[in-house]
Amino acid sequence: MTPTDPAVAARAIHVRPGHRSAVTRTLPEETAVAMVYGGTTQAVMMATPADLEDFAWGFSLSEGIVTDAAQIARLEVLAHPKGAEVQMWLAEDRAEALAARRRFMAGPVGCGLCGIDSLDQALRALPDLGGAGPVMDADAVAGATDALRGWQPLHDRTRAVHAAGFLIPGQGIVLAREDVGRHNALDKLIGAMARQGVDAGRGAFVLTSRVSTEMVQKCAMAGGAVIVAVSAPTAHALRLAEGAGITLAAFARGEGFDLFCHPERLRAEVSDVA
Amino acid sequence: MTPTDPAVAARAIHVRPGHRSAVTRTLPEETAVAMVYGGTTQAVMMATPADLEDFAWGFSLSEGIVTDAAQIARLEVLAHPKGAEVQMWLAEDRAEALAARRRFMAGPVGCGLCGIDSLDQALRALPDLGGAGPVMDADAVAGATDALRGWQPLHDRTRAVHAAGFLIPGQGIVLAREDVGRHNALDKLIGAMARQGVDAGRGAFVLTSRVSTEMVQKCAMAGGAVIVAVSAPTAHALRLAEGAGITLAAFARGEGFDLFCHPERLRAEVSDVA
Repeated sequence: MTPTDPAVAARAIHVRPGHRSAVTRTLPEETAVAMVYGGTTQAVMMATPADLEDFAWGFSLSEGIVTDAAQIARLEVLAHPKGAEVQMWLAEDRAEALAARRRFMAGPVGCGLCGIDSLDQALRALPDLGGAGPVMDADAVAGATDALRGWQPLHDRTRAVHAAGFLIPGQGIVLAREDVGRHNALDKLIGAMARQGVDAGRGAFVLTSRVSTEMVQKCAMAGGAVIVAVSAPTAHALRLAEGAGITLAAFARGEGFDLFCHPERLRAEVSDVA
Repeated sequence: MTPTDPAVAARAIHVRPGHRSAVTRTLPEETAVAMVYGGTTQAVMMATPADLEDFAWGFSLSEGIVTDAAQIARLEVLAHPKGAEVQMWLAEDRAEALAARRRFMAGPVGCGLCGIDSLDQALRALPDLGGAGPVMDADAVAGATDALRGWQPLHDRTRAVHAAGFLIPGQGIVLAREDVGRHNALDKLIGAMARQGVDAGRGAFVLTSRVSTEMVQKCAMAGGAVIVAVSAPTAHALRLAEGAGITLAAFARGEGFDLFCHPERLRAEVSDVA
């Protein structure tokens, strides 16, 4: 059956040269999750078996399968021996759009497109978020990843999962999700925000990971104009963020951060203008 | 055009509350890479633009598209404005097997299968490696990730990429590859090993990352019976390794490690039996 505890105790032998001892470690669980629309699977991801409804809503939004959470008419999570299946039924126009996209991808010779078309598809156009989004203080950005630490109970147990949180200036982190995969954690957060009516334009996505192309794509599709991450962006992700009008702060670790693009959302301080 | 330097200098503003300074950081590059067989794309991955031939060979092997490197009749890397395309042509029987797999996946209603079939597909059966593989000393396992550090030039420049290496007892690390994605680093290593005739049964895969389900699947498909990783396995990955007869050592960081399954490949020491 689908595992339901996101962490599991496991026995191990701790080995140091010349010494062995029995230990118990708490490991993050991982299960296959199929995203199924109208009876056809769009993707299977390995994910932490928690918050699967949020995951499905967020995946549907950040992949552009729906543009609004209301377009998912019905959603059901089914447990199977090999994993979980999220069955979704879309509003009629979105179901037709998805079917058309599938026919295009299936093409005349089975799944897939030629390489050039596939590259186009992978690097889809992103919304322009220039001018949108909050203005933030440097100390809010610098403290964002420390603030997220309080929202990582699974990481506290396992030391081995990622988190994505949403920070609103003046309110701190208002929502966060964890997962063994950083993309999944972000999709779960985006889904939870959509279901709870948290507007992504009001604050910053805060990530425990590096910022890859796909992380920028997901934040942009959700309408987020600020990304704050613990680790580095890739050069390509930076170009995407720059082009989409997203403020990208990385290496954010308590005492400071590097601001890579769109600094206009960072409030000037007295000491800056002195 | 496809970027060719795997690292790129980027300007940023380093911000600490009350202080700003201009800095230059070296970021890892990332580009879309399409794996194309007989003119049809199987997958697009975001990857470090280096060692793309190794990547294609390793991906083909670890995804089971070929079972032997000789089954790739021809391989060509093409640069496009949005990324790179690896065009491959398979030996006739493998091309037919792939076409049949695609027809099965495309099904009657476009791409995809129902959720249960998709879960089966994602969690495919792995070879049984019990009885195969090397016997290793505790100090070789404990020192494996430190030894890999000498093979990470891109990480030295960027502090933000993963590596996978292959360690042969008595010889140390004999080959390693780096990538922004840990799955890609492992695929590149597997491809490089196949091209250079390094038998995966002779040593251990050494990983800078956590050990997820897909990492165990790739190692098993390559015939590797030992995995040594810096960070934690997932519980599901541990069950897979246990079932496939793979020795899994994790949290390997210089002074020691945790041995999670199949300890029979670890040589007993005088102090163990005393």
